[in-house]
Amino acid sequence: MSMRRVKLIVEYDGTDYAGWQRQINALTVQQVLEDALSELAQEQISCTGASRTDAGVHSLGQTVHFDTRCSVPDDKFCYALNTMLPADIRVRESCQAEPDFHARFHAKRKQYRYLIHNHAHAGALNRNTHAHVMYPLDIEAMQREAYALIGLHDFAAFAASGSIVKDTMREIYSAQLEREGDEVRLFVLGNGFLYNMVRIIAGTLIGVGTGKLMPGAISSAIDTGDRLLLGPTAPAHGLTLMRIWYS
Amino acid sequence: MSMRRVKLIVEYDGTDYAGWQRQINALTVQQVLEDALSELAQEQISCTGASRTDAGVHSLGQTVHFDTRCSVPDDKFCYALNTMLPADIRVRESCQAEPDFHARFHAKRKQYRYLIHNHAHAGALNRNTHAHVMYPLDIEAMQREAYALIGLHDFAAFAASGSIVKDTMREIYSAQLEREGDEVRLFVLGNGFLYNMVRIIAGTLIGVGTGKLMPGAISSAIDTGDRLLLGPTAPAHGLTLMRIWYS
Repeated sequence: MSMRRVKLIVEYDGTDYAGWQRQINALTVQQVLEDALSELAQEQISCTGASRTDAGVHSLGQTVHFDTRCSVPDDKFCYALNTMLPADIRVRESCQAEPDFHARFHAKRKQYRYLIHNHAHAGALNRNTHAHVMYPLDIEAMQREAYALIGLHDFAAFAASGSIVKDTMREIYSAQLEREGDEVRLFVLGNGFLYNMVRIIAGTLIGVGTGKLMPGAISSAIDTGDRLLLGPTAPAHGLTLMRIWYS
Repeated sequence: MSMRRVKLIVEYDGTDYAGWQRQINALTVQQVLEDALSELAQEQISCTGASRTDAGVHSLGQTVHFDTRCSVPDDKFCYALNTMLPADIRVRESCQAEPDFHARFHAKRKQYRYLIHNHAHAGALNRNTHAHVMYPLDIEAMQREAYALIGLHDFAAFAASGSIVKDTMREIYSAQLEREGDEVRLFVLGNGFLYNMVRIIAGTLIGVGTGKLMPGAISSAIDTGDRLLLGPTAPAHGLTLMRIWYS
């Protein structure tokens, strides 16, 4: 068969992986997926993911593309791969993509979720998906602070130190907080995110929510580019890549 | 100090345990908790849990009592135990109880939750907390069926075979279904539940929701006591003990 491009939506529990991107000497989701794809297709397959999620970060919507000449029908990759993959990686959808479709470069919007277990004691059942914050969070204060993210801004202050990205302009479309019992959920939607940006946003909102950071930290950091105005990078395991939109 | 009775609210991820109750040759939550309690109190402590949850079943609200002469303040057991317990068991609260308080015999109401991942493909992130149902579920049909549970009924048909309980009358106060995306949640509140009863209810509602069982199965089973009218026992890992009320 001739070469064609296939798109996958991949869900994973990042707990036992050193993140998405293939590494030497560490198990990553990309490697496990490429190994399964290569075995299924009986040819060496490399795949490209939209987001290079960190160790411990989860996905419900990682989008991946790869090229193949194999005879597996496009919409059957998910069924075949799910019989081969470990239980903590699942392919939700598979379909044919345009030959020039690129999972990373063509992403128009991404949504991330950050989950917090807000209780005096850590949770047992949610320990791999929620960051634990023992002090009561003022959700209204966090939501007011989060509004400052919205719009097209230079988020240089929100990039992990050592980041080599030159263009730090990003547009945030929404940043919403909600509480249900002990669970606090942050949803952020934007046209892209710098390395660690969502975790720095979460750490800053937690700081404002516990009173350790003054309200206005986000505006000041956007204006000045000063990382020190923001809170610590929140733990990876609270973060989930939810969905990626393409034009 | 004189002997006193202490009450705990215990959360656990049941994935790696052979259930609540102490067993020979299998690791259970009760054993791990008793070992931690005994080490903390420096005396041999036995504890009694309200519900004997099965292997794989989770808890957000298991209620436990034990007696001790140790000097640890009642409200500090949770903090001390949480530094000793594995991360998949957490004590949410501790307080003094009346000397005759009994976690099991004095329970007046219990709430259980059953979670379903309703999608063509199994989930990765929720694989230990949600049963996977690949066929679309008709939530309205399931809710109509669930209403038949409500009230004081003889639930003999809903007990696991081999159960030795004589009194199979139980009162169900509510049985509610809700869907959010791929997640279907069942909440059941009653004055008590027979062994495997909630999992048989879940399996039956899943049968009605997929069209494999005719509506009316629950009413017929209540009337006749015939287990064969009901669906299969749904998997343990979808079940969570949520909360127990005392008078």
